[in-house]
Amino acid sequence: DLHQHENYFSRETLDRLSGKRTDKVWLETKRNHPDTVYLLFSNLSPMVSSSQVDEHTGVETKLCRFRYEAVKELLQKPATVLIFLGVEKRRGPSSPSSSQMEEGVQEPPAWFAISTDEDAAELLKRCREKNCSFPKTPNRDLLTFSEEEAGIVAQARSVLAWHSRYSFCPTCGSSTQLEEGGYKRSCLNADCRSLKGVHNTCYPRVDPVVIMLVIHPDGNQCLLGRKKIFPARMFSCLAGFVEPGETMEDAVRREVEEESGVKVGPVQYISCQPWPMPSNLMIGCLAVAISTDIKVDENEIEEARWFQRQQVIESLLKGPHPAFTFPPRQTIAHQLIKHWIGMNSNL
Amino acid sequence: DLHQHENYFSRETLDRLSGKRTDKVWLETKRNHPDTVYLLFSNLSPMVSSSQVDEHTGVETKLCRFRYEAVKELLQKPATVLIFLGVEKRRGPSSPSSSQMEEGVQEPPAWFAISTDEDAAELLKRCREKNCSFPKTPNRDLLTFSEEEAGIVAQARSVLAWHSRYSFCPTCGSSTQLEEGGYKRSCLNADCRSLKGVHNTCYPRVDPVVIMLVIHPDGNQCLLGRKKIFPARMFSCLAGFVEPGETMEDAVRREVEEESGVKVGPVQYISCQPWPMPSNLMIGCLAVAISTDIKVDENEIEEARWFQRQQVIESLLKGPHPAFTFPPRQTIAHQLIKHWIGMNSNL
Ligand SMILES: Nc1ncnc2c1ncn2[C@@H]1O[C@H](COP(=O)(O)O)[C@@H](O)[C@H]1O
Ligand SMILES: Nc1ncnc2c1ncn2[C@@H]1O[C@H](COP(=O)(O)O)[C@@H](O)[C@H]1O
Ligand SMILES: [Mg+2]
Ligand SMILES: [Mg+2]
Ligand SMILES: [Mg+2]
Ligand SMILES: [Mg+2]
Ligand SMILES: [Mg+2]
Ligand SMILES: [Mg+2]
Ligand SMILES: [Zn+2]
Ligand SMILES: [Zn+2]
Repeated sequence: DLHQHENYFSRETLDRLSGKRTDKVWLETKRNHPDTVYLLFSNLSPMVSSSQVDEHTGVETKLCRFRYEAVKELLQKPATVLIFLGVEKRRGPSSPSSSQMEEGVQEPPAWFAISTDEDAAELLKRCREKNCSFPKTPNRDLLTFSEEEAGIVAQARSVLAWHSRYSFCPTCGSSTQLEEGGYKRSCLNADCRSLKGVHNTCYPRVDPVVIMLVIHPDGNQCLLGRKKIFPARMFSCLAGFVEPGETMEDAVRREVEEESGVKVGPVQYISCQPWPMPSNLMIGCLAVAISTDIKVDENEIEEARWFQRQQVIESLLKGPHPAFTFPPRQTIAHQLIKHWIGMNSNL
Repeated sequence: DLHQHENYFSRETLDRLSGKRTDKVWLETKRNHPDTVYLLFSNLSPMVSSSQVDEHTGVETKLCRFRYEAVKELLQKPATVLIFLGVEKRRGPSSPSSSQMEEGVQEPPAWFAISTDEDAAELLKRCREKNCSFPKTPNRDLLTFSEEEAGIVAQARSVLAWHSRYSFCPTCGSSTQLEEGGYKRSCLNADCRSLKGVHNTCYPRVDPVVIMLVIHPDGNQCLLGRKKIFPARMFSCLAGFVEPGETMEDAVRREVEEESGVKVGPVQYISCQPWPMPSNLMIGCLAVAISTDIKVDENEIEEARWFQRQQVIESLLKGPHPAFTFPPRQTIAHQLIKHWIGMNSNL
């Protein structure tokens, strides 16, 4: 099943139509089109409306959607960043819209993200919905969208985070200008080396990170660690940035040994997750330990321990007093742990 | 088998000892140590000695290795970039060196890479070996090392390529200084936002790229394409950069459809390869097509075609007049193709 391993932030609702990013006329038409949807970002947070669904389900967050008329004067401001996100994916042939029957097939609505430095309180007044806000703690507040909206937020926030940190040319230090629907920044210094040939300095950055559940050689325990900043009693998978000139599998082995002292043999890729804080690609793996003594790197990890499968199952099911907690279901760490407890101990 | 999918540029010969990067005293001791090995880079090319092995095997390239005494005055020059690569991995317990028996266990030799802007011809005079050079065409000349040296070149060249393009702070445009053994650049502007918290602007960049062999729904054909710049009759796998907010699997589906018009269903990760031109992580996948009509994106691809398994086998075995050629064995594209022809057509 294709959707077996779908993680939060991974659903693709829009067709990115990357070929249209260089088509200025087409982009201009879409910008002014009455069907076009705009999302508003302030400080890398999207404007959302929140509602308490019920005691059990918790908060449900929805993106506030704007039309061209409501944002057009923001588009004129020099500090505004505009990103073309894509167009809504056409439904399958089973549900053709009546307009598709006609000569000029109606194109599906385009989506854009706007980042603005206007005052947040003023921006909120534009919205007719209730309980609107720009959430302040992305790691928590961006986890309450629907799967569809989460995928859009992942794309928009990653690209906007890049613009907010990469407005100068790393090759010569000059200012840069936004191009290609928000997917390129070109140096304004005509003599800059970055303008000769194709260089990654001009394109958004995606940082590959390995995140791994390390399995004890006995197959019935897993290695979890906690950072000082974690909530009390929370443990998670080890993780780390892939370094230059390194494979994913070697990054898993290196990071596990650095952080916990445990040596790892075979590594198996399971699934991945875009994590837009700011723009990581979390590469989820299972890793089989070939040693068991733990010696944590105290700069990064406060504690690392082997957990029995049964302990993990009890904590995931959240009895009245779980001994430990894990990150929420929206994280790939949670999904790797769940994947493992569903597996046979017979590796 | 762990080494089943080992690709060129992937062998880890050195232990990176990333914890030592912040230990200035230790690094200083290693810099001056008589056992330490230095590699010299000019214009992102390592100094190598080449020998024609025989008509069949072709050229064999070896890294020129220097001792501290031979490079110490280069280390004083302001334009020199020095990267700590790691220490040689200790052999297993089966072959302990005699010194390990003694009290003060002898540490294995450390390796550094030096990038200098000194005149290349002058640099070559330092070397006692014959046929030394700084190769000019990395895509070809960096493919003739041993597996061990290729892994070291991948690491060194990726990090040096980052320094050569990222000497200014992307957040404020100021100059930056090299830190942590060459794995960090910090902004020299004390007021810069990049100094508050941890940001990717300070760390080397690794660009994840998906590269995929697309299999026809009949299981017996694969999709290969060629760019205009390829040698005549060479075809290869499609490939493309993973975008922000996207999974590897969705990047495969998007890039294949963009470049060839073919729609892809299931995607399976096979293996990956660091590609140090400049610092890509090539993520190799098999992908199963769910449509077969080809419509190439002419900006990127000159031609794309379905190839019969038998045609591919004949071309790989290189009879006297192969109808097509593929990239060399050192590329993950070649390995994906080889992997597929060894597979059963019964997906
Ligand atoms: N791209 C990056 N973004 C942020 N931190 C990085 C990056 N690359 C390396 N680091 C460093 O890696 C540390 C986190 O360790 P880890 O995630 O285990 O690799 C950070 O505190 C940084 O010092
Ligand atoms: N990190 C990057 N480095 C170089 N080119 C990039 C990067 N990201 C996007 N691109 C663009 O992607 C094109 C290559 O297409 P593809 O490899 O198929 O994604 C280049 O010509 C650039 O326009
Ligand atoms: Mg870590
Ligand atoms: Mg790390
Ligand atoms: Mg780490
Ligand atoms: Mg491509
Ligand atoms: Mg692309
Ligand atoms: Mg492409
Ligand atoms: Zn520039
Ligand atoms: Zn700065």
